[in-house]
Amino acid sequence: MATHKLLLLPGDGIGPEVMGEVKRLIDWLNSAGIAKFETDSGLVGGAAYDAHKVSISEGDMAKAKDADAVIFGAVGGPKWDAVPYEVRPEAGLLRLRKDLGLFANLRPAVCYPALADASSLKREAVEGLDIVIVRELTGGVYFGEPKTITDLGNGQKRAIDTQVYDTYEIERIARVAFDLARKRRNKVTSMEKRNVMKSGVLWNEVVTQVHKREYADVTLEHQLADSGGMMLVKWPKQFDVIVTDNLFGDMLSDIAAMLTGSLGMLPSASLGEVDVKSKKRKALYEPVHGSAPDIAGKGLANPIAMISSFGMALRYSFDMGTLADKVDQAIAAVLASGLRTADIKSEGTTAASTTQMGEAILKEL
Amino acid sequence: MATHKLLLLPGDGIGPEVMGEVKRLIDWLNSAGIAKFETDSGLVGGAAYDAHKVSISEGDMAKAKDADAVIFGAVGGPKWDAVPYEVRPEAGLLRLRKDLGLFANLRPAVCYPALADASSLKREAVEGLDIVIVRELTGGVYFGEPKTITDLGNGQKRAIDTQVYDTYEIERIARVAFDLARKRRNKVTSMEKRNVMKSGVLWNEVVTQVHKREYADVTLEHQLADSGGMMLVKWPKQFDVIVTDNLFGDMLSDIAAMLTGSLGMLPSASLGEVDVKSKKRKALYEPVHGSAPDIAGKGLANPIAMISSFGMALRYSFDMGTLADKVDQAIAAVLASGLRTADIKSEGTTAASTTQMGEAILKEL
Ligand SMILES: CC(C)[C@H](C(=O)O)[C@@H](O)C(=O)O
Ligand SMILES: CC(C)[C@H](C(=O)O)[C@@H](O)C(=O)O
Repeated sequence: MATHKLLLLPGDGIGPEVMGEVKRLIDWLNSAGIAKFETDSGLVGGAAYDAHKVSISEGDMAKAKDADAVIFGAVGGPKWDAVPYEVRPEAGLLRLRKDLGLFANLRPAVCYPALADASSLKREAVEGLDIVIVRELTGGVYFGEPKTITDLGNGQKRAIDTQVYDTYEIERIARVAFDLARKRRNKVTSMEKRNVMKSGVLWNEVVTQVHKREYADVTLEHQLADSGGMMLVKWPKQFDVIVTDNLFGDMLSDIAAMLTGSLGMLPSASLGEVDVKSKKRKALYEPVHGSAPDIAGKGLANPIAMISSFGMALRYSFDMGTLADKVDQAIAAVLASGLRTADIKSEGTTAASTTQMGEAILKEL
Repeated sequence: MATHKLLLLPGDGIGPEVMGEVKRLIDWLNSAGIAKFETDSGLVGGAAYDAHKVSISEGDMAKAKDADAVIFGAVGGPKWDAVPYEVRPEAGLLRLRKDLGLFANLRPAVCYPALADASSLKREAVEGLDIVIVRELTGGVYFGEPKTITDLGNGQKRAIDTQVYDTYEIERIARVAFDLARKRRNKVTSMEKRNVMKSGVLWNEVVTQVHKREYADVTLEHQLADSGGMMLVKWPKQFDVIVTDNLFGDMLSDIAAMLTGSLGMLPSASLGEVDVKSKKRKALYEPVHGSAPDIAGKGLANPIAMISSFGMALRYSFDMGTLADKVDQAIAAVLASGLRTADIKSEGTTAASTTQMGEAILKEL
């Protein structure tokens, strides 16, 4: 059995608590002889700032580069609101994405049937919803230069951010979306603002070309990001795979997640390019929810998004699709049994702490 | 009685039809001696391209500058998808915004009680909803330079858009938001991505300063634009006035509009700075909905957003608040009577064409 190297980066807020439940799962997989994971852990975000005055240390970056997959909790919180911009908690996550080349962020928005009523949308609008947002993650306005604030004198400052996209960046993320669609309902919707942004014009052009050249069998639609956002709210089931840039993807994937009513349940995968020699790709897995500092340390956090993110690692990094399916089924079974953490509690269901939820899922497995 | 100069720019798609109903209203106001409007009209968008190969002619731009208010329909449609970028339909609207200095875009998202069930959100989430998005409209990534596509050779192109904000641009839009909040529920939520964008850092800083210095009596909250979008979907009633930049405002105001279930009903106002001498400000009023080319020319379009935009003109440009209230009441009364255009038709209501709806509102007045 191959040994897989994992780096666990719990981060801040509820990060360590939900990571604890993944740790429990990994320990069991190891001791039951189902898989062989070698785990190491590190600090990121506010936790790294408190320890070393950085958002991630060089040592932990090296470990991340060396790992077969990084399992990431969450970063940030009011405690670090005033730290210098360069070492704010989010910088650690952004550096991981950029330095590991994790250009493809896959964010499934799935409505768990047991939770359809938790959505602010009508049941018929979200029941059975199963879409994936494919978000470009290492380009665009997140990393483009110049990115500056300049003092102009006279009490005036000027802030500049730069959105940059090259053809190859759009090509490779488009391919990820089309490949994924082929395994699903064979439809891709590309979203940009070509009526206002030059990057939208190029995005539209390149996605269209890749489609024509390599994926003519997949249905491709284009929508402006603003009306795409509207359509997402109006009737999300019209979509299968949505491909969009870093900033639109940030907004649209959060909105899609909220639609499902299952925010505490949703995982994500951030993937790099497949290395030609080793056939491996760098990867980071993290829940869509944030660090939720208000409930941290109280045993209230829902570990499902984190466990489900680890499930994505099994699927995308370690080719253990069957085991990943079993994790998904265990989560569904525990929900069907009526167990609920505080965020998804409703009448007639049984309250569970973070640990109780993690243990129940493990028992089900 | 003062004479007010209006420029009507119907534009494309359903623009001319819905503008027809405003024209009817203006004619009546004139003939009944209630007001004195001098109207002129011009071409914008695809209509201007078809006539003159531009998105708006210099003559019409001059008229717009000379008018007390511009009443704008909608632009764009598949017919002009392939026209050169510089003269695409949207360029006409963007030039009007920029050259008239219309930096403040007010987009109310109101849920008409009679239409609460048309929303994809649950009734309790949207019933009684009444928020305003204050969107910065002449800065940010819409107008920042460089804005280019460069051929890098090797089949590679690079697209660049630039987000730029200066202190004064953020100050003046913040003041619009705070002033508006004082006349409403006294709360402003500012949205940006300060954790990723330098413009978000400056935005946050300047809004905070303006608040402290001039509007300490108003409640101010800050949210990251992605979680703000989530909150908008989860529980929109927590907001009163939202202030945000041009691109986030584009996305968030469309989403807010869709939440209400009343998209065909929502107006918007785009305002310039008040001139110190004349005490006048440039202004443009337009419906939030687009040109809807699929239903154009069929008498199916809902004229309410357009009429209601004219109502905003009465309020903000001509100090006719009482008349504006009457327009709003007439719209509400017609809806209560059960009359509906196709977009908002539901069981047990009476179908109306664009003209029938316009006439009914006028009769009610
Ligand atoms: C934490 C933050 C930098 C991040 C982002 O903006 O990408 C988050 O919102 C996300 O979506 O993963
Ligand atoms: C037509 C387009 C240029 C415009 C924008 O992006 O601002 C529209 O979406 C809007 O919101 O008014």
